[in-house]
Amino acid sequence: MAISVLVINCGSSSIKYALISERREDRIYGLAENLGAADARIKGITLGGEALELSIPYADHAKALETLLARLSNYNPQAIGHRVVHGGNMTHAEQLTQQTIDRIRDAIPLAPLHNPANLIGIEATMALFPQLPQVAVFDTAFHQTMPERAYRYALPQFLYDQHQVRRYGFHGTSHAYVTERASELAGQKNYGGWLSAHLGNGSSTCAVWNGQSLDTSMGMTPLEGVVMGTRSGDVDPSLPLFLSNNLGWDIQKIDSMLNKDSGLLGLSGLSNDMRTLVEASENGHEGATLAIEVFCYRLAKSLSALSCALPRLDGLIFTGGIGENSTDVREKTLAYLPHFGLQFSQEKNNTLARGTEGRIDMGTGPQIWVIPTDEEGRIAKETRQVLEQNPKL
Amino acid sequence: MAISVLVINCGSSSIKYALISERREDRIYGLAENLGAADARIKGITLGGEALELSIPYADHAKALETLLARLSNYNPQAIGHRVVHGGNMTHAEQLTQQTIDRIRDAIPLAPLHNPANLIGIEATMALFPQLPQVAVFDTAFHQTMPERAYRYALPQFLYDQHQVRRYGFHGTSHAYVTERASELAGQKNYGGWLSAHLGNGSSTCAVWNGQSLDTSMGMTPLEGVVMGTRSGDVDPSLPLFLSNNLGWDIQKIDSMLNKDSGLLGLSGLSNDMRTLVEASENGHEGATLAIEVFCYRLAKSLSALSCALPRLDGLIFTGGIGENSTDVREKTLAYLPHFGLQFSQEKNNTLARGTEGRIDMGTGPQIWVIPTDEEGRIAKETRQVLEQNPKL
Repeated sequence: MAISVLVINCGSSSIKYALISERREDRIYGLAENLGAADARIKGITLGGEALELSIPYADHAKALETLLARLSNYNPQAIGHRVVHGGNMTHAEQLTQQTIDRIRDAIPLAPLHNPANLIGIEATMALFPQLPQVAVFDTAFHQTMPERAYRYALPQFLYDQHQVRRYGFHGTSHAYVTERASELAGQKNYGGWLSAHLGNGSSTCAVWNGQSLDTSMGMTPLEGVVMGTRSGDVDPSLPLFLSNNLGWDIQKIDSMLNKDSGLLGLSGLSNDMRTLVEASENGHEGATLAIEVFCYRLAKSLSALSCALPRLDGLIFTGGIGENSTDVREKTLAYLPHFGLQFSQEKNNTLARGTEGRIDMGTGPQIWVIPTDEEGRIAKETRQVLEQNPKL
Repeated sequence: MAISVLVINCGSSSIKYALISERREDRIYGLAENLGAADARIKGITLGGEALELSIPYADHAKALETLLARLSNYNPQAIGHRVVHGGNMTHAEQLTQQTIDRIRDAIPLAPLHNPANLIGIEATMALFPQLPQVAVFDTAFHQTMPERAYRYALPQFLYDQHQVRRYGFHGTSHAYVTERASELAGQKNYGGWLSAHLGNGSSTCAVWNGQSLDTSMGMTPLEGVVMGTRSGDVDPSLPLFLSNNLGWDIQKIDSMLNKDSGLLGLSGLSNDMRTLVEASENGHEGATLAIEVFCYRLAKSLSALSCALPRLDGLIFTGGIGENSTDVREKTLAYLPHFGLQFSQEKNNTLARGTEGRIDMGTGPQIWVIPTDEEGRIAKETRQVLEQNPKL
């Protein structure tokens, strides 16, 4: 029987949690948000399916975890799986030892916003549940199978040799889950060539061959690649010099603009939310229309570029909040991919129920799937795998 | 009869020139180099096909042009065509008036290294040949047909509205020439969908549909896109923050590294010259092998990405010093493009004589051409067209 795993995903001001047993329907999950602020709170779903809302004014990560874990300990979790954004060159999920923690800390320069928050969560749960085995599951690990031609930048060698400047890729648990799931549904487990588009507030694409990531759109950080909610994705590498020369901006200001004020929000001048933009575009908002166009065109370009990593294309997958729910984005993106024999079915696309798995192709050519992602389920699965490989735990 | 056009291409420390009449074989051409230095000199070919070499110690652009033009005036040029790198939003070659010169000056923030040198050349020839009509031909003009989804970055709107931050593209005269030439050779003048790869010390790709550029790999500056001799091409937009936080570098140092120490040179640790790298790779140099791999893989990804702009792909073109001469680069790049029905002929690739036009496909699928570029000839042609449209000149 599958053991019950508590999955923890600590962000800079929020903690997502899920308690995952063998049955997907039995999940308990929720979110602690606005941490550090007066309106800090926990919102979730109990085992009985009831809504839970708790006010925890000014609670920090440790305090919120303590409150959460006290409630969840009734459910007797048997292991804890942590989402960790940057695992450097670590290739698999790993049991949390001091050595693993040190390596997560070593990767802070590569993920200065994410890894410190992940470490807070790890330290809090280790203090509160010292008896439970804990595992770190890395966003980057799935992409460690990329060949060197895909992960190296055309930069001076010492930046790679001495400072680990290379492409890592993220959203690994999501790309791994949806491509494995699509392969299963297509009757070819871990086999064949898939392009995956994870489209949420952060977005990335991935080329997977026989279950291994061969290339992905995000790079050293989650800023590279396709257009995202507030992130620019790829820009001209001389943009900083232009902004410095002409607007007097420094690197911090430029990086903040590229991460927080760009993407769909910057292009539209309206919102980082695709639903809002689709509605505004239908009502004639030019910025919204442009933002959607650029988003879909650049997404298609990224998927097409990644096809170079695949000897054969068996299918394409949409996932993440936008990928799962936006019929418009799927239709517009596929319209920019005329060269791969993809036969898009407008009818299937429009009638697929939200949140369900389904095919949106005509039944010939590479398959086109919508697969709701399950990062928490994948983290729980990888946590169990690590524990099975370490019987002493 | 075609009039004789003197083509001038002023770089930061060099001037390329060519005197072009109606017959390609009658060209006089050469290069003034090392300007400002003790070993400044002019090297060229005379009308009789003899080598010319002149020492012009410490000559600046104006002095070198004066020497050059004095010699060339014997040949009675009837117009002068200037290559200008950045034309901002100008869509065609333009007669040089004060207004045009002002607009070239306005574009200096977008091309701070190139446009000032171009202006020096323009001012010197106007002073020396006040009676001759002069025309500016812009690297960027050909790409002004790109749709907004291709030329906008996902950045805050005001950077576009107030500061002209957008993708412009370069190498326009080369992409225009080779795609028009390939269409002619394929018997479909200005018709159909072509992908063009201009691979020189600077490199870019372009998608051309019915003679119009619909997308290209270079962006606001010639640093964006594929790997080049010493330029990085695309990198993670958060690289500057990493280098600032961890190495204390400022924007100037970062931009200089990305432009001068990266690309093939940075990756290989050996050379920016593809011939040197191919030879070193054959002798077992790992850095050279990696640099060639990354160059070809990223080039294939760029071409594949640009296919999204084309409703149909009729052919692929290699040009520029590397594209015209490197059989290895062509073969390796095509090996990463398995999804477009391109049928590469290794035999034709290996036996095509250097510097000649030829097809390297099997005769089915999209055509694959090698076309030696002729930027000077194209500049002369566009200069003549401007003059024909302005009979008063």
